Amino acid sequence: MNIGIFISGSGTNMEALARRWREGGFTQVQQISFVLSDNPLAPGIEKARRYGIETLVIQRQKGESREQHEERILTAISPFSAELLVLAGFMRRLSPFFLSRFPGKIINTHPSLLPAFPGIDAQRQAFEYGVKVTGCTVHFVDESLDGGPVILQKPVERRDTDTAEDLRLRILAEEHRLLGDAVEIVTTGRYRIKNRYVSMESAHEN
Amino acid sequence: MNIGIFISGSGTNMEALARRWREGGFTQVQQISFVLSDNPLAPGIEKARRYGIETLVIQRQKGESREQHEERILTAISPFSAELLVLAGFMRRLSPFFLSRFPGKIINTHPSLLPAFPGIDAQRQAFEYGVKVTGCTVHFVDESLDGGPVILQKPVERRDTDTAEDLRLRILAEEHRLLGDAVEIVTTGRYRIKNRYVSMESAHEN
Repeated sequence: MNIGIFISGSGTNMEALARRWREGGFTQVQQISFVLSDNPLAPGIEKARRYGIETLVIQRQKGESREQHEERILTAISPFSAELLVLAGFMRRLSPFFLSRFPGKIINTHPSLLPAFPGIDAQRQAFEYGVKVTGCTVHFVDESLDGGPVILQKPVERRDTDTAEDLRLRILAEEHRLLGDAVEIVTTGRYRIKNRYVSMESAHEN
Repeated sequence: MNIGIFISGSGTNMEALARRWREGGFTQVQQISFVLSDNPLAPGIEKARRYGIETLVIQRQKGESREQHEERILTAISPFSAELLVLAGFMRRLSPFFLSRFPGKIINTHPSLLPAFPGIDAQRQAFEYGVKVTGCTVHFVDESLDGGPVILQKPVERRDTDTAEDLRLRILAEEHRLLGDAVEIVTTGRYRIKNRYVSMESAHEN
């Protein structure tokens, strides 16, 4: 199976996937076919190159509609025949039209225990709320904002001595593991979705 | 310090506090002075009696305003000089007027990791959302619904084999411990609130 990764920024989650892939940590991922960024200044682009991964920069042009931008993205990624798209810090909401092209084949990582703290800057939202426990979520992407079926979640404790940055980094470290685990689950097809709940199949059920 | 407990139903969280108190598990709680129920049919009333705790049933009368009902509650509890009120499954929202009579001295337990799944039937809300992690929260009560500063939170994993009832009971067991721990923290005064964040003081800071 070939996977593609969408980023907009530093690309640390993408890098965690690339490292795991290079170390043979995925049983069904042939290749990370491409890393696409909508932001030409994203530091993740250079990181992807260092892993020998093809990079695509498809910036939204001035005056361009979301649909036109997405059409260009679809055209650019089409040759790679990716069977799974991983949004790893991709800061754009995809349209129903785009999603319909990859039904059930787009996943996203989010730095909170959804449905708490959707949207941007989730770690800071949690910090300012004063939570004792936050975490991260990998979920299927549907038309709701950060609202598709949850694949994996991991709690992360906020400690009294934490700065917002301490908390952000501790969540990020867990996110790296969680996203890789979710990619393994989805690419091996070892899951079922029923009433929004994503359950894992154990080996003997296959 | 004397504490009072408000319930509306089965009173299992109240019972956990009563058991801990009887076993000497609180350093500053002289007495659980009363258990108040707004529901005359609450099974928790009988449980409280078995622990030798005074019980008060103050039902809202037909046509009675919230303020009138709260006035009767205040009159009934006034002789007990409770310095902390613990809402343990109390299904009524208290008015700003009532809250102002016990500033910073009312805490509530809620069966989710707030701010996720506020309001009623939080465990079922989480189950139906399809979460992998939920939990419970003890927080100070302010005028927002389930929104005051968080004292303690504890994550609880949802397992693939869980029924909604399995999950509810696993959260409840954690809630029993968490609520007791929160009562100990609040009654010993070993905490500080800053920008909504409730931090614990260690012994040497006192």
